[in-house]
Amino acid sequence: MTVLIVYAHESPASFNAAAKDAAVASLTAQGCTVEVSDLYAMKFKAAATTEDITGGVKDAENFCYAKEIKLASEEGRLADDIKKEQEKLKEADLVIFQFPMYWSSVPAIMKGWMDRVLGFAYAPEKRYSEGIFKDKKAMLSFTTDCPESVCSDTGINGDINVTLWPLQNGILNYCGFQVFAPQIFWDPATGSPESRSSMLEGWRTRLQNLCGEATVYFAPLDYFDKGKGFLLKPEVKEKYASKDSGLTVGIHMGKPLPANSQTKARV
Amino acid sequence: MTVLIVYAHESPASFNAAAKDAAVASLTAQGCTVEVSDLYAMKFKAAATTEDITGGVKDAENFCYAKEIKLASEEGRLADDIKKEQEKLKEADLVIFQFPMYWSSVPAIMKGWMDRVLGFAYAPEKRYSEGIFKDKKAMLSFTTDCPESVCSDTGINGDINVTLWPLQNGILNYCGFQVFAPQIFWDPATGSPESRSSMLEGWRTRLQNLCGEATVYFAPLDYFDKGKGFLLKPEVKEKYASKDSGLTVGIHMGKPLPANSQTKARV
Repeated sequence: MTVLIVYAHESPASFNAAAKDAAVASLTAQGCTVEVSDLYAMKFKAAATTEDITGGVKDAENFCYAKEIKLASEEGRLADDIKKEQEKLKEADLVIFQFPMYWSSVPAIMKGWMDRVLGFAYAPEKRYSEGIFKDKKAMLSFTTDCPESVCSDTGINGDINVTLWPLQNGILNYCGFQVFAPQIFWDPATGSPESRSSMLEGWRTRLQNLCGEATVYFAPLDYFDKGKGFLLKPEVKEKYASKDSGLTVGIHMGKPLPANSQTKARV
Repeated sequence: MTVLIVYAHESPASFNAAAKDAAVASLTAQGCTVEVSDLYAMKFKAAATTEDITGGVKDAENFCYAKEIKLASEEGRLADDIKKEQEKLKEADLVIFQFPMYWSSVPAIMKGWMDRVLGFAYAPEKRYSEGIFKDKKAMLSFTTDCPESVCSDTGINGDINVTLWPLQNGILNYCGFQVFAPQIFWDPATGSPESRSSMLEGWRTRLQNLCGEATVYFAPLDYFDKGKGFLLKPEVKEKYASKDSGLTVGIHMGKPLPANSQTKARV
């Protein structure tokens, strides 16, 4: 198995670095080929701009990044740094995003990787369970600076399952990735050295069996009616009408959200 | 009134540019002072790095951006580009973020503005209804490349109210901003020139009365128990126990989400 770790922390002494190093060591020991994209070390360009397209954009006056990047990708006219990342992505069976959560999301430098490298995968006709990366797996592994209670459905920051939806559904699932449950390191900075060691030990243990894990549930593409604004098909709606909770966090059908659906794999 | 428009589109011929220009014209005509931060034109640095702090970081080995930026801010040791944006922010009564939605969120260059310029406002002891910017208003104004149905609670992309939660609650409300309902331009690129004109006309009309609008509802800080992991106080839980829906999208209490709570002001 080939694994790409997209890593966004500046300090080699950080907990994020330790989590990345633990993954490299554990996966390598299991015989995986592991590649790391260390975004800060690479000084990865975050902003999606016309410079990402070589040989001139098609419609400079009314520049639309998504359209231009898709065209340029088909024609091999992407900037070298994007091409290099896409080569790594092509080889990877699993992509792990390792980062400190900044403002309920990934740091800008990692959002830049997503905007620029995954840009070509933004394809309404090939998305979700039919997405470009449907044979690959992906997962988020991140640190928070708050305890878990604060991110519950009665906690002040609100349910982490809601916070993760745009990242896990809107980006990873959209591209077709099967998404492993996130690895969340709750507030390692505040804990004791022992608690940090114990978190890393838990991560190493999980990595031993990661490939055998089930993935997070998302609704398959064929649940939706192409001709009718991609709404749930009547028969699917009917099938789920009597259930106590919605399908997913975002496709909740006006019902309570299925519990822990973005933080736990479907049993 | 002073308005800051944080704007992220490269093309002056884009719909986003037209929306920004409409806001500048309308607000100026009303007597507002309007400042625009045109992030691409400014080549705004997106990545949050040690270079954002002058005079050396306190803990280089175990670099924590949030802590360092807060310290540097208190001591006047922030990079010039951050300082300039913070000066604009200080003057502003209202901040409008104008952008094309990329991957269910803001483009990386705008996330970079949030990570770097708002970094100092990330303060657990002064957040939400007690947040640093509690006397200011903010709003998201953005274009999508999909129709509204796709972003409903039975649409394939999932409820837009869920998608907006991390941005509107996790960033804007966290900093204390009172948040106006977002201005969403649904898929202007696919529509006719007439539909685009009509969207802009609707925006101009809204801008005429924007200041009188109510804002989106978020739970106040005093609903939560400081000593107990910032969970909803028992008396608040009890008060809302018999309601049909949760408090907000993220603090949903295991109930259905309140409808349109991130896209409409509280009536």
